[in-house]
Amino acid sequence: MSHQPKIVSIQDLPTHEAKWITLKKITYTDAEGKERLWEVAQRKTRKSSGIDAVAILAILKSKTNDFPPSIVVVEQYRPPIDKYIVELPAGLIDEGETPEQAAIRELEEETGYKADSVVESSPVLVADPGMTNANMKLVVLNVTLADKLETPDQKLDAGEFIVRRVIELKGLLAELKVYDSKGFILDARLHHLAAGYTMALKGI
Amino acid sequence: MSHQPKIVSIQDLPTHEAKWITLKKITYTDAEGKERLWEVAQRKTRKSSGIDAVAILAILKSKTNDFPPSIVVVEQYRPPIDKYIVELPAGLIDEGETPEQAAIRELEEETGYKADSVVESSPVLVADPGMTNANMKLVVLNVTLADKLETPDQKLDAGEFIVRRVIELKGLLAELKVYDSKGFILDARLHHLAAGYTMALKGI
Repeated sequence: MSHQPKIVSIQDLPTHEAKWITLKKITYTDAEGKERLWEVAQRKTRKSSGIDAVAILAILKSKTNDFPPSIVVVEQYRPPIDKYIVELPAGLIDEGETPEQAAIRELEEETGYKADSVVESSPVLVADPGMTNANMKLVVLNVTLADKLETPDQKLDAGEFIVRRVIELKGLLAELKVYDSKGFILDARLHHLAAGYTMALKGI
Repeated sequence: MSHQPKIVSIQDLPTHEAKWITLKKITYTDAEGKERLWEVAQRKTRKSSGIDAVAILAILKSKTNDFPPSIVVVEQYRPPIDKYIVELPAGLIDEGETPEQAAIRELEEETGYKADSVVESSPVLVADPGMTNANMKLVVLNVTLADKLETPDQKLDAGEFIVRRVIELKGLLAELKVYDSKGFILDARLHHLAAGYTMALKGI
């Protein structure tokens, strides 16, 4: 675990050789009835749920208030960006899984924490609808701990190198700014959640 | 403007024919020094700023408090999803533009509102870092109106069909749920901002 990941080469990838993603050309008629073209990238892994992925907002609380309400974020190297990204735990939905089941599974794999209840699931959300058809749900889970903050073992797959971090909700945006100053890159969804939270705290 | 946009056909798009996006194969060494492959979709439009796009959180306020602090969202048909999406105003950064200049320009084009000041710009954020290298900044702009809510003319390009909507910040998440119930699809970043805002209001 002591190596710094690094890119060896970046090559053009013909669509017919790609296994995980693909490009499509959409021909559509617009609001004036005029025919137009749009290019889109798609995942090839979407299962029968019709939803690619879940992100998990795990709210950690202590029964005895030994620590303030917190969430868990993950740090991982992402080859498309060639940087360490700070994100909510997330993962693709397997065949036969509900989004909530995928969220509980991924939370335990990536962070070790076991959810005790599902608070809510968002509607289907789109990550970048001008460029891809990628979609997801945000699932909010409760993780109630007996007293002090525990750090259970993660259950990572071979080749997964994920660092988990517990952050107090009230200080989330400030911590994300510290990450940015250290050269980490922030996931937009996590940042927007923190920005919204802080706006409300400030009375905006 | 009376036609319902619809998809005529979806075809495979060979990488060498694509004008706006492309696929790349990344060879990298992981944290154990092992060589691995990753597939990524990239925009071909990124300019020298190194940032693809901006999203705009425009905070509308009345000097005389004739309406509560509100933001502006846009509704538009997105061919990759084949639905109407509710998003923050957003756009690609032109050559020579700063993210803040792009935000002020796009806000006026898409919504008609003229910003009077830049509140802040986020760090560089990534929209979906497992799949694409797409990046962006969130720019917060102030729009101060004399008294009541104005609805200035948009400055849309030919072929752009964008509906703007002003929503009170405190009711944002509830309004997004109404959009969902009507068949609109929500942008993940806008939803996460609203979810964070509401969590803080509820004292979570």
